[in-house]
Amino acid sequence: MSDQRPIGIFDSGLGGLTVARAVQRVLPREQLIYFGDTLRCPYGGRSRSAVREFSREISTYLLSQNVKMLVIACNTISATALDIVRECAGKGIAVLSVIEPASAAGITFSSNKRIGVIGTRGTVASRRYSEILTKLDPAVTVFEKACPLLVPFVEENILTGPLVEPVIESYLDEVIDYGVDTVILGCTHYPLLTRAIHRVAGGRVSVIDSALWTAKEVEKILNRRGIASLKRRSDDIFYVSDLTQNFRDVSIAFMEQTIDVQKVDLETELSKLK
Amino acid sequence: MSDQRPIGIFDSGLGGLTVARAVQRVLPREQLIYFGDTLRCPYGGRSRSAVREFSREISTYLLSQNVKMLVIACNTISATALDIVRECAGKGIAVLSVIEPASAAGITFSSNKRIGVIGTRGTVASRRYSEILTKLDPAVTVFEKACPLLVPFVEENILTGPLVEPVIESYLDEVIDYGVDTVILGCTHYPLLTRAIHRVAGGRVSVIDSALWTAKEVEKILNRRGIASLKRRSDDIFYVSDLTQNFRDVSIAFMEQTIDVQKVDLETELSKLK
Repeated sequence: MSDQRPIGIFDSGLGGLTVARAVQRVLPREQLIYFGDTLRCPYGGRSRSAVREFSREISTYLLSQNVKMLVIACNTISATALDIVRECAGKGIAVLSVIEPASAAGITFSSNKRIGVIGTRGTVASRRYSEILTKLDPAVTVFEKACPLLVPFVEENILTGPLVEPVIESYLDEVIDYGVDTVILGCTHYPLLTRAIHRVAGGRVSVIDSALWTAKEVEKILNRRGIASLKRRSDDIFYVSDLTQNFRDVSIAFMEQTIDVQKVDLETELSKLK
Repeated sequence: MSDQRPIGIFDSGLGGLTVARAVQRVLPREQLIYFGDTLRCPYGGRSRSAVREFSREISTYLLSQNVKMLVIACNTISATALDIVRECAGKGIAVLSVIEPASAAGITFSSNKRIGVIGTRGTVASRRYSEILTKLDPAVTVFEKACPLLVPFVEENILTGPLVEPVIESYLDEVIDYGVDTVILGCTHYPLLTRAIHRVAGGRVSVIDSALWTAKEVEKILNRRGIASLKRRSDDIFYVSDLTQNFRDVSIAFMEQTIDVQKVDLETELSKLK
């Protein structure tokens, strides 16, 4: 049987597009509905209570669009509001956060059992990666480092070169000095910095991009639940809460193609559901 | 007569604290009520319609606090929503934007009538500085440059050194190559970068900080309207829409003192006013 309901993917803004792109590649028959909260991004520096309330609103909206699964394509939301999203979804709808697949990959890649995680201030403060990684393997040591300037560079489409690489180096040196052999990119913006990160790290560490591992996990869940789509029907839908020319420009870097983006007034849409 | 109603000062987040600090210095008898929309900052990259709606909400809230004047301590709001704030305030309440005082100072300082303005993407896109400057002196030539990475550095409290200075240089070189002798800091975050900006500019330009000139203009307006406070009564009040430890830490750099900050739920407060 073919379940052609869409997969809901959401993020505070642009970053989750790296996950959407990976899901498109791994699962070309699935339709996606993406929501990026560009009116209130970035979430990385906001309080826990704010992120939890925003996550409830977005989940409620996507569930009203008849999605068969929710993918939290944002580490900050995954780290601070997974329980809220699960509560909104109920038992019938699978919820996947990016942290579990990335952590599992980190465990697989690390030989010396010392793993670094770089992310936003909110993600690191939650210690969620440490929790998941040590649950998967109690022998690992985790070093988490907040890198709050990396998201602004990515949003400016400055992905390599003499301005961003010293900033990456200032963050990464501390992580590498800790003796890790694997670094998890604990923010969905960071995969776009992979080239610069490799240049700075100079082969000293394996770099784990959560997007790919999350997409593979989506595939497993759909198959396990028997809700995969067997034939493609509709185009992917991209919603944002604020639409600017910069979003249009930068989304091309994330998606490797031009996407058709629509603006949604979340407050209005939610009041219609009441 | 002494008018002891407070002065309302607002910004998208932290930046306006540079203006609040200047007003404290110039007008120590006045009480301030500050509002920083930290839940939705930064405004610099958001759409015009979003900034206008947010400005209407904040103005309405501050007016409900019985302020005698509104100071828009944010260039992005000044550039895109001054008319909205004026409309909310009505004729009885003076409204001052940071752009006019900074522009007047720029005209005074420039000898060669070539003036640079650095600011957020929203401020520069509005061309508001060019409009005001050429109205003040039709002979001036204005070069405006968006510097979207500077706000994130200031919010990280990275104000000098090898990470931020190359970024400042990449922006400023283009402005200076244009032959300007004066640069207006068209964003209330930038005064904290003054030392780094001077180091990069190396004495080639005068740097205009809008905070000081705005505070002096507030003084003039209070005197002209006869609404200055003659004796100090109450402490200043600082409201934010989201409160994090980072805000507490960085606000010390802006205010040169620890401030007591309270979180306000703008949506709830506005619904009470209906």
